[in-house]
Amino acid sequence: EKGGLYPVNPKMTEVRGLRCYPTLLDTPDPVDHVISLIPARAVPTLVDQAIQKKVRSIHFFTAGFSETGDPEMARMEQEVIGKLKAAGIRAVGPNCMGLYVPSERIAFMNGFPGEPGNVMMISQSGANAGDVVHGLGRRGVRFSKVVSFGNGIDIRAHDLFEYGAADPQTEVITAYIEGVQDGRKMFEAIKAAARVKPVILLKGGLTGAGARAAHSHTGSLAGSTEIFDALCRQTGAMRAETMDDLHDLVVAVTTSVRRVRGRGVALIAGGGGFAVLSSDAIAAAGLDLLPTPEETKRLLREYIPMAGTSVNNPIDANSAAPDLARTTLRLVAQAPTNDVVIASPSFGQRGLPGAPDTTPGDDERDERIQEQIRVSVEMFAETQAETGTPVVALLRDRSASRKQMDAFQQEAYRAGIGTYPTVARAARAIALMLRWRERRTGLPTLF
Amino acid sequence: EKGGLYPVNPKMTEVRGLRCYPTLLDTPDPVDHVISLIPARAVPTLVDQAIQKKVRSIHFFTAGFSETGDPEMARMEQEVIGKLKAAGIRAVGPNCMGLYVPSERIAFMNGFPGEPGNVMMISQSGANAGDVVHGLGRRGVRFSKVVSFGNGIDIRAHDLFEYGAADPQTEVITAYIEGVQDGRKMFEAIKAAARVKPVILLKGGLTGAGARAAHSHTGSLAGSTEIFDALCRQTGAMRAETMDDLHDLVVAVTTSVRRVRGRGVALIAGGGGFAVLSSDAIAAAGLDLLPTPEETKRLLREYIPMAGTSVNNPIDANSAAPDLARTTLRLVAQAPTNDVVIASPSFGQRGLPGAPDTTPGDDERDERIQEQIRVSVEMFAETQAETGTPVVALLRDRSASRKQMDAFQQEAYRAGIGTYPTVARAARAIALMLRWRERRTGLPTLF
Repeated sequence: EKGGLYPVNPKMTEVRGLRCYPTLLDTPDPVDHVISLIPARAVPTLVDQAIQKKVRSIHFFTAGFSETGDPEMARMEQEVIGKLKAAGIRAVGPNCMGLYVPSERIAFMNGFPGEPGNVMMISQSGANAGDVVHGLGRRGVRFSKVVSFGNGIDIRAHDLFEYGAADPQTEVITAYIEGVQDGRKMFEAIKAAARVKPVILLKGGLTGAGARAAHSHTGSLAGSTEIFDALCRQTGAMRAETMDDLHDLVVAVTTSVRRVRGRGVALIAGGGGFAVLSSDAIAAAGLDLLPTPEETKRLLREYIPMAGTSVNNPIDANSAAPDLARTTLRLVAQAPTNDVVIASPSFGQRGLPGAPDTTPGDDERDERIQEQIRVSVEMFAETQAETGTPVVALLRDRSASRKQMDAFQQEAYRAGIGTYPTVARAARAIALMLRWRERRTGLPTLF
Repeated sequence: EKGGLYPVNPKMTEVRGLRCYPTLLDTPDPVDHVISLIPARAVPTLVDQAIQKKVRSIHFFTAGFSETGDPEMARMEQEVIGKLKAAGIRAVGPNCMGLYVPSERIAFMNGFPGEPGNVMMISQSGANAGDVVHGLGRRGVRFSKVVSFGNGIDIRAHDLFEYGAADPQTEVITAYIEGVQDGRKMFEAIKAAARVKPVILLKGGLTGAGARAAHSHTGSLAGSTEIFDALCRQTGAMRAETMDDLHDLVVAVTTSVRRVRGRGVALIAGGGGFAVLSSDAIAAAGLDLLPTPEETKRLLREYIPMAGTSVNNPIDANSAAPDLARTTLRLVAQAPTNDVVIASPSFGQRGLPGAPDTTPGDDERDERIQEQIRVSVEMFAETQAETGTPVVALLRDRSASRKQMDAFQQEAYRAGIGTYPTVARAARAIALMLRWRERRTGLPTLF
């Protein structure tokens, strides 16, 4: 039976309504994949049974092998992998969360989206993989495969990069790496993958303190920033310096942000002081916030009320009226100086003084806000389609509820619009992507 | 009548249940403070009436004066201030949000906390002041006075620093500045304030793009990073480089974070990969994540289960059990290498696989989580009191609802515990505070 699930535990007869079997050998049907959640010392027996049962693969959630530094446990790890290899059984782990494959209904944490997507994540940390799925999931991203591979006694990072490069469901590969096994193979696998798909890499343990933690976590040895940066440059991969970068770059390469061709940014966001700090952030990221061209200013002035607003860039339209917002967005997107427009959707925001109360959690406003979300996303998507200029949504954590913010992000992402929580992060993602494109000279253009 | 409110509008007879008067002169009682929300061209008439009515102060929300660059409006601004000065009436603005003084029940945005606190904010942007009150309000901070002073035709930044330095309700002063009027007076006022109270300054418009936006917003001219940094150093003020810094430093100086004396940081947080990236972030901030001393390790090992956990620093106790968490926190805080402990509270977090579902918004868990919040805050506060080591709460945006996260932050803050959303921001706030302390040689020690 496809998708059949067989709990195995000698002390139980039923687990959440499923019949529980005393050992793997007692399960009635052929078994494809075994998930080992038992202590390390019980693993050799399980492996013998798996061989007898002719399973195809095992995921060892089980920890306590070579990563402990205990020589006996390292020896047992070797013995286990030797037996599995001889029997042709592939292994994920040990010491890892294993597989999230939504199309096969396999997941390793609660709250993972049920529907599949186009991003593959390769991770030497289950917790970080979980944060990526949860965090990017809220921003609309969906996954083809996520693999936390732990000690990598059989399936290693390079195998997974090779898989991702060939997998038709995977359009983007991202990875969290602490140490490198088989350096040359890894380099070649990343290089081959990065030729054909965007590859986004985050390396943990680049500082002394981080390297100590990585050694304690996965037994990995220290790397250096210079070497890792060179690896990214030579393979054509994007380098994420932080977990935020990884999230933000995945959003960039799976939305219209990837079509940004130059450094000219327009920002439409209310609040003069916010505009000033945002301008500083955009400049600090190395992008250009050019003055609005005269012709665009003239057209904007026909629509935007004068006092307390600005038609300069940043444009401070200071209005939640949909028609005005739509016209402003279109005119700004049409201006020849602007390669990308960053704009705030106008649902649930504080407007001018005297606007309705926007305290979070006011249920009465929910329905109106749902409609505003729909209108905002449509406006962004239409502007993008009409003008050819990518539009990025800035979703500040201000007055909408988390549910509303999530609803906007999901709907915007489905329409090809990337959402960022701050101007600084949106600008940095764009700048990192532009730099990556510049560095890829000689490699195939992916977008 | 104290707190009496008199709407004035010739076209209305009632506003939200309050009697509305055709002109200021028609109001029945003496008036202390006038808030002008009328167009600029109508202001001279209002000013004449205010003089006749013998009011004490006016706040001009009204924009459209000198900041427009229109010479006639600049002249009108001068005329208005001339008349007010002659009559002894103080003015805030024009072109600003004015006053938030919770003790006097005056506020300029919805959702501002009703109860007063000890932080004064001086701002050349109403929107930024609003973001500070809302954002820091969620983290528990309360305010004595917040003043958005706009064009500053009468009351200017230096007046407000002088006021803040002397105000007994104000223990901390923070400011968002775009341009400087009366540079020498401003320098002296900041210097005098920073001698006696922590002063946290953020300057907008330090890049070319930011300076253009500042000119458009408040007519301010460009500053330079070097000059502003020198001002902070010479006056003994703390420099915030971003709005996040400003928020994080206010939290630092109003909680136990201000008692941190050295660079030794301990981190208690689950997830091996998260520990690695956090270690990198702490090292990048210039702090030390020292290995756990052997004696502390020995004591920890008595309590912490072995597999998948770490007694090294970061400590990955990987357990939501309150007793274990309490013991771990105490032992780590007692270790002589640790000047501060950053720890995650254990409510609503993902625990080991198999732990209860932690999808956000599950109402059934609310009550249990409220109790976990109470227990967590108590644990942090007790540990701090018993060991003398400041404890900082790391509140990642993962599985608790916003309401629960806000509840934790409020309760933690009242207990003297600062909360930060990421390890990087907590580490940066600590590092900036330590640097400020080092730079204050020769000035009085504030804490």
